Amino acid sequence: MRDIRPLVAPRSIAVIGASTNAQKSGGVLFHNLVRGGFAGPLYPINPNAAEVMGRKAYASLADVPEHVDLVYIVLPRDHVETAVTQCIAAGARAASIITAGFAEASEAGRVDQERIRAMARGAGLLLGGPNTIGMVNAECGMMGSFVNFPRWETGGVSLFTQTGIFTGALMLGVMSAETQRLPVGKSIDVGNKIDVDELDFLDFVADDPGTSVIGFYIETILRPAAFLARAKQIRGSKPIVMLKPGRTADGARASLAHTGSRESLTDSERDALDAAIAEAGIIRVADEHEFVDTLRTLAYAPRPKGRRVAVATTSGALGVMTTDLVVEAGLTLSTFAPATVARMRTILPDWLPPENPFDFWIGIDVKGPREAHEVGLDAVMADPNTDMVLATLLAPGNADFPEFGALIRRLRKEHDKPIVLAIYGGAARERWIRDIEGAGVPVLRTSREAARALALLAAAAAV
Amino acid sequence: MRDIRPLVAPRSIAVIGASTNAQKSGGVLFHNLVRGGFAGPLYPINPNAAEVMGRKAYASLADVPEHVDLVYIVLPRDHVETAVTQCIAAGARAASIITAGFAEASEAGRVDQERIRAMARGAGLLLGGPNTIGMVNAECGMMGSFVNFPRWETGGVSLFTQTGIFTGALMLGVMSAETQRLPVGKSIDVGNKIDVDELDFLDFVADDPGTSVIGFYIETILRPAAFLARAKQIRGSKPIVMLKPGRTADGARASLAHTGSRESLTDSERDALDAAIAEAGIIRVADEHEFVDTLRTLAYAPRPKGRRVAVATTSGALGVMTTDLVVEAGLTLSTFAPATVARMRTILPDWLPPENPFDFWIGIDVKGPREAHEVGLDAVMADPNTDMVLATLLAPGNADFPEFGALIRRLRKEHDKPIVLAIYGGAARERWIRDIEGAGVPVLRTSREAARALALLAAAAAV
Repeated sequence: MRDIRPLVAPRSIAVIGASTNAQKSGGVLFHNLVRGGFAGPLYPINPNAAEVMGRKAYASLADVPEHVDLVYIVLPRDHVETAVTQCIAAGARAASIITAGFAEASEAGRVDQERIRAMARGAGLLLGGPNTIGMVNAECGMMGSFVNFPRWETGGVSLFTQTGIFTGALMLGVMSAETQRLPVGKSIDVGNKIDVDELDFLDFVADDPGTSVIGFYIETILRPAAFLARAKQIRGSKPIVMLKPGRTADGARASLAHTGSRESLTDSERDALDAAIAEAGIIRVADEHEFVDTLRTLAYAPRPKGRRVAVATTSGALGVMTTDLVVEAGLTLSTFAPATVARMRTILPDWLPPENPFDFWIGIDVKGPREAHEVGLDAVMADPNTDMVLATLLAPGNADFPEFGALIRRLRKEHDKPIVLAIYGGAARERWIRDIEGAGVPVLRTSREAARALALLAAAAAV
Repeated sequence: MRDIRPLVAPRSIAVIGASTNAQKSGGVLFHNLVRGGFAGPLYPINPNAAEVMGRKAYASLADVPEHVDLVYIVLPRDHVETAVTQCIAAGARAASIITAGFAEASEAGRVDQERIRAMARGAGLLLGGPNTIGMVNAECGMMGSFVNFPRWETGGVSLFTQTGIFTGALMLGVMSAETQRLPVGKSIDVGNKIDVDELDFLDFVADDPGTSVIGFYIETILRPAAFLARAKQIRGSKPIVMLKPGRTADGARASLAHTGSRESLTDSERDALDAAIAEAGIIRVADEHEFVDTLRTLAYAPRPKGRRVAVATTSGALGVMTTDLVVEAGLTLSTFAPATVARMRTILPDWLPPENPFDFWIGIDVKGPREAHEVGLDAVMADPNTDMVLATLLAPGNADFPEFGALIRRLRKEHDKPIVLAIYGGAARERWIRDIEGAGVPVLRTSREAARALALLAAAAAV
């Protein structure tokens, strides 16, 4: 087991190609490191400048007064190999090669990449990249990317990705959201995955107290047997979510072209690997949206004690739809305890017996929106026969009340069970979602996604 | 075959319960009819007012100087039956009962509803409701609902729904969107479906020149054999989308409680019906989001000539993911013609051969964002071996260019084939989507939804 902390949690960083031009990748990356408030010393390597962004510049890595942990290499393709030799000569512990144009680009690029890999391996230099947007470790303030993230929300999610720009786009989308943002403490993109791989990362996050949920976007698993064995050990304490394309022959071919990976499996080999991934208790997702939703749900919500779901709704139609989706997701509808039913009756007219799904729209007419939601939602959250709550609510003006956010926060605090929301229509929707920000309550966009989120939590609790 | 135009496309409307109080349902509904600019005469029925919103009020329906086509009944539950008798006595052709508390609420309510049904049937009075938000027909300016829709976008989509408030919430959500709105010419909610049913509506829209796509939210099919036979006749010219919950036993039970419908099928009967619906070429969707996405795609995009898809992307990772999803959706990747490949080469470095998925991110470095997107997207749209284009694009600052909207509009106009977009990350995303508003290009939120949209168009073209 290798210690990859010099790469993913460095104490000191040098940037070869730290341009004074804030338009160039090397300039942007160094600028982001400075602005991000990296905890340790930063060394711009630039022979043509005395300083870069107020930091003393060095003509070469050899001039830096310490053996740095990590060196970012942001140079034209043909200068990369020389830079790696300089890293080795200077006693650096790790390097992240940002530059593209290697194995993902051409056979010649693949040959060059192999030569660089062999050289670094021989010298014990950890490598990330090439063809990567870099790495973020919010814990030590390392915003090591040429992508500008206007704001970054840190937290227990740790990501390992094998791709260039996609990770940047994904994180830009995630981090520019006003609400329901994904708390990501570490986002490590290794691009072509020349050296440090998913197993190295799994070993790192297994012992990382800052990591509670682990996400992988990978196109290959270099050491499947060892990786899956390790995954089984930690999946119980830290759920693992994987977005791994190449499930189809065309997808696998496209993956080869994309990352220049050599993994070329037959269809049956691919099926066997997919089965082994599932057997290891890894949560497999199919697209980027499912990836983020799954990570968010696991980061926000507690684990349920069982699979019994209460569906609370202010739309009979949504209640019916959601019931199908909950059952089809492999969950069961809870049978409310007598005390719960008695509670529910207080907001419904006599002729309407409470059931599951619990539709309390008419309670809004009877008792007003605040009392209807307070009693209705508290009843399902307090129900002893209910492990999880799916509340699918309408937010038109006549259902709105100012205390919605406070209510949801209180319910989430008082009852140690997951509640997920889907909110529809109307002016109040955005405010309701804003008002529960930070409460640990996932808001899914549709009934289907909400039902899936609960199934996911049940699966994570079961392992 | 009944002529239901008096109900769904009336020439004159009376409202029993047209309150002068704009807070009450009857007041809101009448207010919406006036503000909506209904084409024909409007008669408020209100014994305690001389006029309502500037319209002469009548003490009773009998006083109205004509036999009206449609009467909205917005009264407390216990006054509804009397109002229906008045409709019959006054020679009205149709009535929409807004009031709730009938079959969906209790056994007593069901009995009352049956009595009202029998009475109206005997007299040939068309009925909608009870327990409905009403009906919108934008063609004749009928905003016949107690839900306020700030703005309504009319168009070729005609909806028939069997639910109360859900339709309102769905339409509020759809109609409050800034972009990618669903063009709905007619939205007919019949609540408990006391009389006019899905087959009556299908007969109406079949001959309605204003209808190009048909959407049903229904919990029961009252006359399945005739309905499905009719659906087969028209599905080719007007695709039919159906959201029908109750696929599971729990869902079916919840549906009974919701609409008070008497359809109580065994599991095998339910399976047989589901199979027949699929066999009739009806597009079945599972949740409200899929419902709207599907209708929008069918309303926006032309039908493809075949199933060959070109995936154009500025993210290799998205290209790989999307390839899996396209293949898993039952479509094939097109093999680009030599001329197409030659075109693509002009924006790529020599070492990067164009493939499908066509990743032209690096073309942005080589030629700049405008030329890369112009050449890249035009190449796939012009490719003779490509029937449909899925463009999954990143929108960070360095990929942005002001002419994006104009480019997509031009491509959509010049090439008679569908293009669907998924756009990720970055500041430009919202503007790109705004700039193609009205161009007939669906923007889906994820790769999976985009792949599904193309599969849907291929299916609609095949029938």
